[in-house]
Amino acid sequence: MSSDSKLSGDKATVHKVTVHEVAKYAGVSISSVSRALSDHPHVSNALRTRVRSAALSLGYRPDFLAHSLRSGTTYSVGFVVGTISNPIMADISASLGNVLADHDYAMMLLSSQNKPELETTYLRFLAHRQVSGLVISTAADGATQAAELIHGLGIPTVMLDRQRPPGSHVSAVQSDHRSGMQAAVAHLLSRGHRRIALIGGQEFFDPARERLAGFHTAMQEADIAIDPELVRCMGMSKTVGYTETRSLLASSNPPTALIAGGNLILAGVLQALQELKVAVGRDLALVGCDDTELTRLYSPPITVIARDLALMGETTAWLLLETIANRAGRTVVLPTQLIIRDSSS
Amino acid sequence: MSSDSKLSGDKATVHKVTVHEVAKYAGVSISSVSRALSDHPHVSNALRTRVRSAALSLGYRPDFLAHSLRSGTTYSVGFVVGTISNPIMADISASLGNVLADHDYAMMLLSSQNKPELETTYLRFLAHRQVSGLVISTAADGATQAAELIHGLGIPTVMLDRQRPPGSHVSAVQSDHRSGMQAAVAHLLSRGHRRIALIGGQEFFDPARERLAGFHTAMQEADIAIDPELVRCMGMSKTVGYTETRSLLASSNPPTALIAGGNLILAGVLQALQELKVAVGRDLALVGCDDTELTRLYSPPITVIARDLALMGETTAWLLLETIANRAGRTVVLPTQLIIRDSSS
Repeated sequence: MSSDSKLSGDKATVHKVTVHEVAKYAGVSISSVSRALSDHPHVSNALRTRVRSAALSLGYRPDFLAHSLRSGTTYSVGFVVGTISNPIMADISASLGNVLADHDYAMMLLSSQNKPELETTYLRFLAHRQVSGLVISTAADGATQAAELIHGLGIPTVMLDRQRPPGSHVSAVQSDHRSGMQAAVAHLLSRGHRRIALIGGQEFFDPARERLAGFHTAMQEADIAIDPELVRCMGMSKTVGYTETRSLLASSNPPTALIAGGNLILAGVLQALQELKVAVGRDLALVGCDDTELTRLYSPPITVIARDLALMGETTAWLLLETIANRAGRTVVLPTQLIIRDSSS
Repeated sequence: MSSDSKLSGDKATVHKVTVHEVAKYAGVSISSVSRALSDHPHVSNALRTRVRSAALSLGYRPDFLAHSLRSGTTYSVGFVVGTISNPIMADISASLGNVLADHDYAMMLLSSQNKPELETTYLRFLAHRQVSGLVISTAADGATQAAELIHGLGIPTVMLDRQRPPGSHVSAVQSDHRSGMQAAVAHLLSRGHRRIALIGGQEFFDPARERLAGFHTAMQEADIAIDPELVRCMGMSKTVGYTETRSLLASSNPPTALIAGGNLILAGVLQALQELKVAVGRDLALVGCDDTELTRLYSPPITVIARDLALMGETTAWLLLETIANRAGRTVVLPTQLIIRDSSS
């Protein structure tokens, strides 16, 4: 990209492109350039695109601090994640960051370490910095005030895999966890399993609630009563996966199949099974959520309820750009897919 | 933390703490508060600590944008990583972010996706934003201009697991990869292996060069000639791990032991071994670098050259705070440790 090569060159030898040159190149006024580059609400998409490509072609970069003083915007997007220990965040953030970078936004990733109070602090921090937009995947374990705060801040926001709070400036990208879970349960039932356990997150956590709903629906459709002992919706952590697996397998009537309702939970499940010397696929059928290196490379490879993480990141980016431009928040639901492997055969 | 609970409460009911109150509480002048909170170079550590604790006790937070206008600093640290797909970055960034947060700095994580030109762009972006400090783990595959740029920018910086470029404002936290690799090779030799392969990164990448040096030293000490066919230092990616493993095992004289010189390389190695139905530990001894969920949970569990990732993050944070305060850059080398498991028995 020409703008990058200019930026990385020796400062003294690089001609600094001015806003006047961008205006001339795009054939528009200086104030149009200014409005187009600052996400002014009354700029047409055509003008925005024209000015952005002129700026990119010439290698023009506004001075961010000076720019933020003039216009109140900063060409940056804050992405607040619960934890980057979750391997799916790497794939999502790579594609999200790529699309945003193509549109000249830098993405700042802040990890709340699943602490609701840190989440609130970071959102206010980003608001003070006058970011152009926010993406947030709220903490999984703990009541969060993020939705209320996002509603109040008025900054264009995409909720990642969470429900959309009210407000025309807020959109959401969700996954169809419910259908994915129904498919997983139907698959286990078709292999003859009747005692199917689910370890998942608590009900206030949107994906956990959806997965539990899918579990109930699939069991009801098959007319099989759920043993409440087998449903452990305690939290989205490795510790929960470990503790609940040990407890389930120590019971007098253990499950023959186990669904780990999250990839951190799965790590704990696998550690418990390793210690108990339970052979995955032979002694116990196992299904995980989300496809990671661990589920692909484990022996035997692990059946998962998967989703297209690159698509999720891209959709989030496009929806954020749309929400910045139009302020007409909406929800997009992306599909999930059951990938059957040897762990559940 | 009282400051957080105040921040997350209803704005209207919260008393906004002023700089005057902080000055009174700390028993210092307003200009001292200002200098202490803005990392002014001529502030003693005692004054800094006193003012910071007063600010924290009262729940005082400067308005970042207004503050950056006055003082030119922003209470933020930029952390540029090659890729957050590398699972060790999650552990390092969690402990790094925790220590920085305790000192009232927000950490912004930017992923360069191992593209040197994006790295340069991000560094300039952070410099424009006038961050208080930088932490950078430069791209593993590709000549980077980051070191030169960091030298020129003059912003207090810690290089993470890389060599320190000249400049009193630059420090480095490194790992003793060389000793770790020597220990791994000595271990494999003690188990009778003579044809030991190494898949690693290219020589311009500091940790790869150190690992290769350790490999050479250990083989020389045992008086064993290295077959150059077994040393594949091509890059730190999963693709390299996969391709080189397939190539090594297709040879007429394959290795009996394999060292994956990086955790992304290891993922590719394991995929190739899975496809070739090679039993790890029985058909081929295997050693990885860095301890992750995958190496711990794999069956059999994988021998690794490990390091204390939480310690690495903490050391990086403390060294950055020190470098911001003293501008006396230095290098800290942390130990590595061989953890022997069934993959190399």
